[in-house]
Amino acid sequence: MAEHNPRYEVLPIGWVESPLEDPAQAPRQGDEGAPPAWLAFEPGVADGLRELRVGDQIIVLTWLDRARRDVLTVHPRGDPTRTAQGVFSTRSPDRPNPIGLHRVHILAVEGVRFLVSDLEALNGTPILDIKPVLGPLAER
Amino acid sequence: MAEHNPRYEVLPIGWVESPLEDPAQAPRQGDEGAPPAWLAFEPGVADGLRELRVGDQIIVLTWLDRARRDVLTVHPRGDPTRTAQGVFSTRSPDRPNPIGLHRVHILAVEGVRFLVSDLEALNGTPILDIKPVLGPLAER
Repeated sequence: MAEHNPRYEVLPIGWVESPLEDPAQAPRQGDEGAPPAWLAFEPGVADGLRELRVGDQIIVLTWLDRARRDVLTVHPRGDPTRTAQGVFSTRSPDRPNPIGLHRVHILAVEGVRFLVSDLEALNGTPILDIKPVLGPLAER
Repeated sequence: MAEHNPRYEVLPIGWVESPLEDPAQAPRQGDEGAPPAWLAFEPGVADGLRELRVGDQIIVLTWLDRARRDVLTVHPRGDPTRTAQGVFSTRSPDRPNPIGLHRVHILAVEGVRFLVSDLEALNGTPILDIKPVLGPLAER
């Protein structure tokens, strides 16, 4: 299947607004003490957001724009005393396509701005997509 | 935050090899009867994969290259009798950045080819990333 070499372009649908500015200070995962943050969407995608409500649990996909794309092994959790591992068995932001997955709750909605819980992404991180958390088969 | 208009390029790290060829025949989600499929990785990313083992549960991120990127509302599950919804409250492949999330188990490993369970992605779908499913905090 690898006879061609396509590239695809992603386009941010919004940006994270967060007090987190410094990668060294940011929690490793959202459930490790990350603060609430705003998702500030582009007005042009408003129709795509219209059913989302306070209390919903969503998966935010981000582009981790401060990550390194040229590494395939990392020390887990940035700890140099731990043996280096392949990036695909870690959640390191450093990886060939640095896409972040963040499971959060919606705390407030103001037009195309959503306040969400526990987001470890840095201020200014581009948002690529929002997906609902899937419920049981019968509710789809 | 939207004063600039950056675009980012994703580069496939591999491709899906699956008996699924026709979007109309493919299951909507992996747990709705999807078959096993091979993940055929580029040899250049082998170092990133080296700790992954048969039995591991992983999240596969794909680029849904046959999706429409110009729609913001869809009929859920392609059913025209259901009211159209914003794409960000559905798992439709049609969305501005058509990134697929697939939670699967590794069934076999042959070099840089991994057989995985229950993958609803079509044959030839580009793979963007692999992430481990996160366990409890104490095990990270």
